[in-house]
Amino acid sequence: MCDKGYPVQIGVGDDAASVEIEEGSLVVTTDMLIGGIHFFSDASAEQIGKKAVVVNLSDLAAMGAKPLGLVYSIGAPGDTDVEFIPDILQAMNSTAREYGAYLIGGDLNEAKELIISGTALGTAKEDELLLRSGAKPGDIVAVTGELGASIAATKAVMSGVSLEDKESLKRAFFEPVARVEEGRVLSESGKVNSAIDITDGLAANLWQISRMSGVKLIVDEDKFPINKAAREFAEEQAIDMDEIVLFGGEDFELIFTVRSEAWDDLSEKLLDLGTEATKIGVVEEGSGVFIERGEGPEMLSDRGYEHFLG
Amino acid sequence: MCDKGYPVQIGVGDDAASVEIEEGSLVVTTDMLIGGIHFFSDASAEQIGKKAVVVNLSDLAAMGAKPLGLVYSIGAPGDTDVEFIPDILQAMNSTAREYGAYLIGGDLNEAKELIISGTALGTAKEDELLLRSGAKPGDIVAVTGELGASIAATKAVMSGVSLEDKESLKRAFFEPVARVEEGRVLSESGKVNSAIDITDGLAANLWQISRMSGVKLIVDEDKFPINKAAREFAEEQAIDMDEIVLFGGEDFELIFTVRSEAWDDLSEKLLDLGTEATKIGVVEEGSGVFIERGEGPEMLSDRGYEHFLG
Repeated sequence: MCDKGYPVQIGVGDDAASVEIEEGSLVVTTDMLIGGIHFFSDASAEQIGKKAVVVNLSDLAAMGAKPLGLVYSIGAPGDTDVEFIPDILQAMNSTAREYGAYLIGGDLNEAKELIISGTALGTAKEDELLLRSGAKPGDIVAVTGELGASIAATKAVMSGVSLEDKESLKRAFFEPVARVEEGRVLSESGKVNSAIDITDGLAANLWQISRMSGVKLIVDEDKFPINKAAREFAEEQAIDMDEIVLFGGEDFELIFTVRSEAWDDLSEKLLDLGTEATKIGVVEEGSGVFIERGEGPEMLSDRGYEHFLG
Repeated sequence: MCDKGYPVQIGVGDDAASVEIEEGSLVVTTDMLIGGIHFFSDASAEQIGKKAVVVNLSDLAAMGAKPLGLVYSIGAPGDTDVEFIPDILQAMNSTAREYGAYLIGGDLNEAKELIISGTALGTAKEDELLLRSGAKPGDIVAVTGELGASIAATKAVMSGVSLEDKESLKRAFFEPVARVEEGRVLSESGKVNSAIDITDGLAANLWQISRMSGVKLIVDEDKFPINKAAREFAEEQAIDMDEIVLFGGEDFELIFTVRSEAWDDLSEKLLDLGTEATKIGVVEEGSGVFIERGEGPEMLSDRGYEHFLG
């Protein structure tokens, strides 16, 4: 944690951490992960640490912010293996570094269950912040990457199906990714009117944009960029695809709405990062979220992702 | 939360909160409070919310930082009274406002026990940060306010002794105070070389300054500003005063070391805030923490405050 340009003035060990900042907007987000709810009780320290960071950085990504640092509070049972917490912290730190952020402080406590509360700090210019409330009639509704891999992997693990030959599900489960660079591209374009990350599920997150922007969203089922392995898994297991794609959560992809004239340029810039974006619908005047399927648009259920044990 | 000068651009409700900032140092601290360990299981929502904020702001105070905002994550059992969490948040918000800070975001989860993780953000000029590591030989060791009321009150409650006629203990228990303005005065003086807030106990926190500054501290037992009601309670209950004053925690007072020539001016400025500061010792070359008592200085045990159930 001592490379050139390291902005942390005071790290772990004093009453508080201190980071050098410039004038602008400080973006802050916090999330609590609880063992057995947000990660499996037998998850590895590396998996837990990585997810704790990705969950928070994904929220920064959805704001178009540049990550700066993270602080964490960890509660753990007294009989936790002595290496487990340091291993979680190491995974948090190395994951943070992958995104140009630093682990700058924290607090450890004894608790009945393993609990990780992370707070991520980022910076942005105020006029570039991506909000949930900015969608405008005429915008394209789009999504980065693919849908369904994370929840399909979780369902597979829960039903004892091996992920060994399911590379993309395995990756979604063990190596979740926050779309931080993509979020920066969206915000810098000046043409993206709203954004949110998919944590509660496509349906619930579309509803949040609809409600907060006061607009109607119409999405087309045939356009959804469904992960191939997730689709195969759902078919094999006879799981309703809606449960995977619409009501499954934690894809950590970004849903965004953008002026249509900016689409070509923006999708090309995302492709430069190796990320395909897909148009899945349009914004209209009105309210609610509708899905084109079968004989016409029907209102989409505003049902969120239920964490596996929550 | 809409008064003039409100710096929060985006509050609760989007992917993250956003706050306007100026160039300088961003000071960040996080603490996790767990029901039955850091507060009694039957504590009121108001008491919990207030303490969650004070614990964090006390860390900012010990850095000499100006509070900006707080974010929280709360985990609560599914059968928690529906009003309880909103009441905690209201108490957190009103306490934050007392110190000029704002509650700017958060996350709620279901957990086995009540857990509140708060992260406080503050600002400071880099050269004004109060560190644990700056104490210098020749400094005076001083402390704000009085010692022992918080732990005496906790011990009283645990042993079923009423606080009704013990006004100052009751206040310490229900209305803890973070020395935020005092911390600003210390940092702005430019003469305070180190500071820490008393959370682990006077002895443990003196040891932290000694270790991190690489100096010897000698304190004089006769100088300790012991809270009168705490002393009376300890005498009544035949509790060793050391357990109250040296090894009791959570006084949230500031220990600081200051150049002796600046003492008169500094203590007067603190008095202007209504806070008496007391010289309790000196900094010398060497290492360790020693206490003047009986026949001469003896080394003080580096034993911290054990939370009542932790």
